[in-house]
Amino acid sequence: MPGINGTHGTSQTTAYGDATVDSLLRKESTPSAPSDTCQEDVQLVLQSFRLLIADLCQQFGMGHPGSAIGMAALGVALFKYVMRYAPHQPQWFNRDRFLLSNGHACLFQYANHYLAGYKAMTWEQLLSYHSERSDSLCPGHPEIEHEGIELTTGPLGQGIANSVGLAIAAKHLAHTFNRPNFEVVNNHIWCVVGDACLQEGVGCEAFSYAGHLKLNNLTVIYDNNQITCDGSVDLTNTEDVNKKMEACGWEIIDVMDGVNDVEAIVNALEKGRDPNRERPLFINVRSIIGVGSAVAGQAVSHGVPFGKDNVAAMKKAYGWDTEKHFYIPDKVRKFYADIPKRGDQYVKEWEQLLDRYTKEHPDLGQAFKDRMAGKLPSNLESQIPSPDSLPTEDTPSRKSNNIVMTNLFAQVPSFMIGTADLTPSVNMSWKDYEVFNPPSLTPISGKKGSYKGRYIHYGIREHVMAAIANGLAAYAPRTIIPVTSSFFMFYLYAAPAVRMGALQRLKVIHVATHDSIGAGEDGPTHQPIELAALYRAMPNMLYIRPGDSEEVAGAWTAAIRYDDGPSMISVSRHALPQLKGLTKREGVQRGAYVLQEEKNAAVTLIATGAELSFAINVKDALGKAGIKARVVSLPSFKLFREQSREYQREALRRHDGIPAVAIEPYASLGWERWADAGIHMKGYGHSLPGKYIYQHFGFTTESMTERVENFCKAWKGGEIGRGEYCEL
Amino acid sequence: MPGINGTHGTSQTTAYGDATVDSLLRKESTPSAPSDTCQEDVQLVLQSFRLLIADLCQQFGMGHPGSAIGMAALGVALFKYVMRYAPHQPQWFNRDRFLLSNGHACLFQYANHYLAGYKAMTWEQLLSYHSERSDSLCPGHPEIEHEGIELTTGPLGQGIANSVGLAIAAKHLAHTFNRPNFEVVNNHIWCVVGDACLQEGVGCEAFSYAGHLKLNNLTVIYDNNQITCDGSVDLTNTEDVNKKMEACGWEIIDVMDGVNDVEAIVNALEKGRDPNRERPLFINVRSIIGVGSAVAGQAVSHGVPFGKDNVAAMKKAYGWDTEKHFYIPDKVRKFYADIPKRGDQYVKEWEQLLDRYTKEHPDLGQAFKDRMAGKLPSNLESQIPSPDSLPTEDTPSRKSNNIVMTNLFAQVPSFMIGTADLTPSVNMSWKDYEVFNPPSLTPISGKKGSYKGRYIHYGIREHVMAAIANGLAAYAPRTIIPVTSSFFMFYLYAAPAVRMGALQRLKVIHVATHDSIGAGEDGPTHQPIELAALYRAMPNMLYIRPGDSEEVAGAWTAAIRYDDGPSMISVSRHALPQLKGLTKREGVQRGAYVLQEEKNAAVTLIATGAELSFAINVKDALGKAGIKARVVSLPSFKLFREQSREYQREALRRHDGIPAVAIEPYASLGWERWADAGIHMKGYGHSLPGKYIYQHFGFTTESMTERVENFCKAWKGGEIGRGEYCEL
Repeated sequence: MPGINGTHGTSQTTAYGDATVDSLLRKESTPSAPSDTCQEDVQLVLQSFRLLIADLCQQFGMGHPGSAIGMAALGVALFKYVMRYAPHQPQWFNRDRFLLSNGHACLFQYANHYLAGYKAMTWEQLLSYHSERSDSLCPGHPEIEHEGIELTTGPLGQGIANSVGLAIAAKHLAHTFNRPNFEVVNNHIWCVVGDACLQEGVGCEAFSYAGHLKLNNLTVIYDNNQITCDGSVDLTNTEDVNKKMEACGWEIIDVMDGVNDVEAIVNALEKGRDPNRERPLFINVRSIIGVGSAVAGQAVSHGVPFGKDNVAAMKKAYGWDTEKHFYIPDKVRKFYADIPKRGDQYVKEWEQLLDRYTKEHPDLGQAFKDRMAGKLPSNLESQIPSPDSLPTEDTPSRKSNNIVMTNLFAQVPSFMIGTADLTPSVNMSWKDYEVFNPPSLTPISGKKGSYKGRYIHYGIREHVMAAIANGLAAYAPRTIIPVTSSFFMFYLYAAPAVRMGALQRLKVIHVATHDSIGAGEDGPTHQPIELAALYRAMPNMLYIRPGDSEEVAGAWTAAIRYDDGPSMISVSRHALPQLKGLTKREGVQRGAYVLQEEKNAAVTLIATGAELSFAINVKDALGKAGIKARVVSLPSFKLFREQSREYQREALRRHDGIPAVAIEPYASLGWERWADAGIHMKGYGHSLPGKYIYQHFGFTTESMTERVENFCKAWKGGEIGRGEYCEL
Repeated sequence: MPGINGTHGTSQTTAYGDATVDSLLRKESTPSAPSDTCQEDVQLVLQSFRLLIADLCQQFGMGHPGSAIGMAALGVALFKYVMRYAPHQPQWFNRDRFLLSNGHACLFQYANHYLAGYKAMTWEQLLSYHSERSDSLCPGHPEIEHEGIELTTGPLGQGIANSVGLAIAAKHLAHTFNRPNFEVVNNHIWCVVGDACLQEGVGCEAFSYAGHLKLNNLTVIYDNNQITCDGSVDLTNTEDVNKKMEACGWEIIDVMDGVNDVEAIVNALEKGRDPNRERPLFINVRSIIGVGSAVAGQAVSHGVPFGKDNVAAMKKAYGWDTEKHFYIPDKVRKFYADIPKRGDQYVKEWEQLLDRYTKEHPDLGQAFKDRMAGKLPSNLESQIPSPDSLPTEDTPSRKSNNIVMTNLFAQVPSFMIGTADLTPSVNMSWKDYEVFNPPSLTPISGKKGSYKGRYIHYGIREHVMAAIANGLAAYAPRTIIPVTSSFFMFYLYAAPAVRMGALQRLKVIHVATHDSIGAGEDGPTHQPIELAALYRAMPNMLYIRPGDSEEVAGAWTAAIRYDDGPSMISVSRHALPQLKGLTKREGVQRGAYVLQEEKNAAVTLIATGAELSFAINVKDALGKAGIKARVVSLPSFKLFREQSREYQREALRRHDGIPAVAIEPYASLGWERWADAGIHMKGYGHSLPGKYIYQHFGFTTESMTERVENFCKAWKGGEIGRGEYCEL
């Protein structure tokens, strides 16, 4: 039986420290699959897998063949030998989680899912990769909606960050629910990364933080093929990767031949499960992108099919029929055939364990079942303080958050709250909170660590905070409800991960504080102007700017009810008047509502969040000048967009010919939908203490009133018509 | 004279590996300033500096005292001894560049600028920190607009990334213009970072890439005080920082006593300048946040003034008059007095060198002077291909970019072009381009490196790409015009840096490809839906979506003309019809213009970018149904917003009662300004090959025409009025 040596004519070399493409390719075929399988079988499996990928890309002349082919041996090690999962019960709670952070190599996962026997991944489905089928389960990157996919990956670095979230979730649940002799949670998290995930900032944050947390239930497998789109990695990156990972607190295992040496990979992976290891494990697997093809070891094999002739040559070199496409020998099918049964056995044993556990620890067993089912206390919303018990004095809405939610945070174990090094500023902690940190760690300042802890100090790592939150949320629906917090402006750092949460409809609640120019003296770098436009435009994202404590209660109510994606509650640093009797939490649920009605109004003033009270002040001042105004609070574009047109008309009364003026010191973009004019920021903010900055930009009652008055005149005089948004 | 030992009652300890706050504080005062200054003077200077900072924060009860105080000795070493700069000629081209990446410690820089004799930084100005003065030169973070500030910092990690850009600029200019015996560019880049910059992903990317580039003209000084807002660093980060930096290709020097040991710091810094060093230098300086105060070594000293009593106690312990505030002894003033003169001497010697250089190398000398002055070839715009020479066949606008600009890129040395590992996809390279990489590096695949190279392979590091571009642009106005490129979706990764460029009005051109759902099979992770809203809302950002090659020429014309901030040219992956005779590059300059007029139109169709031709198809189809339509191209919201209301009315004719329908498969947000209805994306995209995806989402001529027809009926029937944006 032919090995893979001599299958191509390239003398291309690549960097492996101590190996080259050629040396690896020339290496005598010394397969070393676990002893229960003969070497020949494994070689056949590897060839079959590689050719299947090549054919799948060739089919429609599109796709990413190289990495998936290079990882063939890793696939065997993971899906056949090491991972504990159940293809026929893919939602088994204690399954190992697998993430492909280099999501473009998705065929690796699809083909392995097919071979391992996932039911949804039929042969027909596998062949639909890059077809015209809009119901394909084989999109260009793995998507969470499909069986066996834990999270959507693709934007590089997200997957490794998500897998840290999965590992935190597993570790937290294990330490919360496991009891002696009852390891109801003891699964392992496996994540494959490519060179890109090691370069992306969010990946770097993830590695650093996972090392700190000593997540020994996480194994990262580095598909070290030394090739990126632009060429060899050394064009852009000459780090000592192992040394860097070690410095970050990881244990390292090298696998020198990731092309053929299944046994070495299996041995390395098995070390991942060792409960005595105190660090996460990084397995550096040398592989060859597009191995076996004429473009092996070359960048061009990354995202372009090899071409018909090259695929034929590959088959020929393997001694296969060059005219047979998508061929999987029976031996190969047989090789994988036992996986579903084995998986069912895992599930059965675990369910028996769970039964014994529930008998021995009935309350805990019930609690665990509730958590697995994502069940929240039925009285959750009623625990939010009533309007009467909210403050009457001016209160920063970041503090209102704390008033509204920390009691629930303390009581409801599903919430895991974290902040990117702004604990003193964002007010998200509660009395006696425990910190999620290794139990072995007692920081110089701060509390002893515990994996039972539900308060996460993410460090100054906003991007990975949001990406980890996605992993926490994806572990199982509502088993953990992650809450993150930082200054609103720094949710621009986190935006790619926040978006991934929205794309995947993950229930994550982001609390963005310091959300207006009123944040003050930190200056324009810290004052959001344009960021709300992003989150208001983002599909599935529930962005809310509540105006006082009552609206904060409304915002949390909405966020708790919303199961179709992330929410972001955007609050102020500075104290806001409490608009008692005007603001209504139920109003927030409709996105906008009338705060002050006025039958014969000449103008509607719309405001939101930290500047909601400005509209009331302007209304009063306009009243003195003989202009009647009504006031609308509009905390959420999304919720208001979803209302009926009748409700929208009632709230805004533009249909009655009344013009609307928005007041919000952000960029105007988007306000044109609701208003005819607006008082907004025309550029960036300024470094001035809070009490001076609104004045500096003309957000005084006097100035705003004058501008609205002039606008009303121009409107009345017909100088300005509807559909010509005026920035006053 | 009292030392700083015994000045406070805390027994707080912090992590220095081998030292604690106490041991450092108890350490006998062994000042070791360079031998021309007596020890006592240095101690006095340090005390004076620390008390000045404490007083400045005390004044208005706001500010960040801790780090600035902790870095007092570093300030002396840098500003008094090591840096080559000229306070009275702050724009001297060959000055060392200094960046404070931990920008919240801005008082460190302001106070040192005052002491060093920067003219703008008067005593009165220094005292304006956190005052009500809107013209203060002492904002909450350093801002580029002010004398001596190289770039605005504040969002953590940006500064270190910018400094890599400055170092690339200096290295590139040196290798381009220096000749034997004529080092006209030989300055050094100094960057101070705190713990946060080491944690932020963009910082990690910067460190990794700078190490790869072997930028030996860059020294990073780590103010290692082991404290962040939440407490001690070990709460969130337990990396071996030195080892990690070494793995990234940096040389490391430790300074164990950064509180007092000025000499050790000076010695370390001087090594930064060593031309024989082959790597960038990382100096790990152990310091104590808020040293000398009762809150020394504690997180609370980071962002809160110490309080009156604590400041008084600090003064008392130093033996200073507790009632004297803002006191700078004459000895201290004298200590700094020689700096401006020394700076002028640097400038003088350099100018003499430049004179000799220009005599010896007249052409080169002139070229250098032009570059320093930011002078571009006068015929720049006329070199952009004329309409006649643009393609007539369907062309991807990413390719149009190449057709329009690569000739200019090749010829005009001011352009430095880079991509985040997408060279084969973004089409930004040109024939025989040189790669900016260390001359010692010949990558396994790729060209030999050269610091003269103007094509930058950034790796898979979008965020630092944009941040480095900011540094390149800030080196001197238009001396280098950085161009970056990646998929549009990944400009979400880069967004925090792109924003910083916009805030600082830096001339950077971003080329965002694959900007529509038409990008196809990569799926929703790669299809931008909501991102344009961010860039359309971002102040100073010129975001343009050109519709064909002629509009691409218009977009580049606009970007070249625009000196008030970054531009982003947003182009397609897939081939677009060339709308010959309809599209006009000069039309692009006005943001929107009429593509097809129709006197008695019932509707105006507005479209943009990759879908511009859709509007023409729909117009034609509507015509067949007896509905007259006109077509407007709207490639830039910003440019159109800036037109007169008259021009806007002329272009849109909504004032004539004609409704407008926008066609763009993005989120609708923002379109409400220009249109009454729109055909947009209501959620995320889908993984389908380009030819199927528009169909999947109803962007076929048939479906769109039907929807516009129905809208026109509803409009005519009064069911829908202006100001009620309809998503069709």
